[in-house]
Amino acid sequence: MSSKHLGSGTTCPPLEEGKLRIYSMRFCPFAQRAILVALAKQIPHDVVNINLKNKPEWIFPKNPMGKVPTIELATGQVLYESLIVSDYLDDVYPNRPLQSSDPYQRALDRIWIENFGKVISVFYKLLQSRSDLEEFQKNLQALQSELSPFEIELARRGTTFFGGELPGMVDYMIWPWIERLPIMKSFFPDLNDYENAKKENPKLEQWRQAMKEDSAVKEFFLSPETHIQFAQSFLAGNPNYDLLEGSE
Amino acid sequence: MSSKHLGSGTTCPPLEEGKLRIYSMRFCPFAQRAILVALAKQIPHDVVNINLKNKPEWIFPKNPMGKVPTIELATGQVLYESLIVSDYLDDVYPNRPLQSSDPYQRALDRIWIENFGKVISVFYKLLQSRSDLEEFQKNLQALQSELSPFEIELARRGTTFFGGELPGMVDYMIWPWIERLPIMKSFFPDLNDYENAKKENPKLEQWRQAMKEDSAVKEFFLSPETHIQFAQSFLAGNPNYDLLEGSE
Repeated sequence: MSSKHLGSGTTCPPLEEGKLRIYSMRFCPFAQRAILVALAKQIPHDVVNINLKNKPEWIFPKNPMGKVPTIELATGQVLYESLIVSDYLDDVYPNRPLQSSDPYQRALDRIWIENFGKVISVFYKLLQSRSDLEEFQKNLQALQSELSPFEIELARRGTTFFGGELPGMVDYMIWPWIERLPIMKSFFPDLNDYENAKKENPKLEQWRQAMKEDSAVKEFFLSPETHIQFAQSFLAGNPNYDLLEGSE
Repeated sequence: MSSKHLGSGTTCPPLEEGKLRIYSMRFCPFAQRAILVALAKQIPHDVVNINLKNKPEWIFPKNPMGKVPTIELATGQVLYESLIVSDYLDDVYPNRPLQSSDPYQRALDRIWIENFGKVISVFYKLLQSRSDLEEFQKNLQALQSELSPFEIELARRGTTFFGGELPGMVDYMIWPWIERLPIMKSFFPDLNDYENAKKENPKLEQWRQAMKEDSAVKEFFLSPETHIQFAQSFLAGNPNYDLLEGSE
């Protein structure tokens, strides 16, 4: 289900002929963006997982920051930054376009993806405030404020997904953090706030259920329990990258 | 040379038929990005300046954050975020394309623009450390570290501009902060560091001189003295948006 995360002292596996390579970390939401695009567009690819705490020497010539996602084309050319990589893959592989062919709609969708940065920022604040109930509840409210424009926009579009009747770029770019939101329930399990959030965002809740049925999302989906298990190891300073190794 | 910055209680000037409208603030480097693209591509447009400390009520229906640049199309459709707006204008107006037609080169250029975010971040740290010589010099060194990859890349490309023999998207997206760098000399005028920086970045220095001769850059250029005068009013908490009004 997930290959071992390669660290310092390892050798980079040779590229498979004609295949796109995605350097990833199994639990990284940014890397998940690129992988969802590759899966949705059925781009032949392999995934090489990297130990981000003990990075392999061979990643730096490809990406000076050694971050994931980094992609390597069959030609050996390299790109990184999750949104740039995702746009590139959508531009180059014509199968199942994820962006509108109308430049104005494409620009609007980019603004929505950009705005989702505020949700991402609250997501990490929630993790940081996990032992301070008052701060945590304040951040849950901030999360609701940042999600609320997405609820309104989805109602305005009147479609199942932001992309229409199939998920598009907005859907796949925001999904990784939505998949991980249940992590938050593990910190203060008795709060009512989680259920209230679902009631306040009925369209997003329907969208979330529909996303879980999408084949690309399904293929890379991890259960809340697994995300919680990884998050706990990560927050303890000892990320268990190979949690899934050997499992299936 | 610059129209009055409209604040609360004003009326939004009616759109001119068939013209793109750019909402701006004369000294905003992010708004300058969009204006440089419009000038380089000779897109007919008008500019409406906004008082960012006392925003006009009519900006919020166009952009909930009331930020610049915001553009309004002849159809009344609105977009914002400097990079999204700049890409959109380049996509829609075919005259003088600013991005490569090769998707891989376009993605690489986006990575360079993204990476320039680190220079922008040091730029604002320099402003903040203007009364602390030690911190200021540390930030000047950080600036050099962040600029150095651009020096190396320009040498590698072997062209006058990042875009080739004419400025392209990378050039215009990074220029506004380069134009403003001389502000820093006003804080500790006796330091040698500024001249050393020019020696350490000979390619960037040639590029800077060439950029100053570009017609789009020239048309919106402000002298170091003017940038310093605005920066002082801004740092004193009382930005003099209309500094240029009536001048010329």
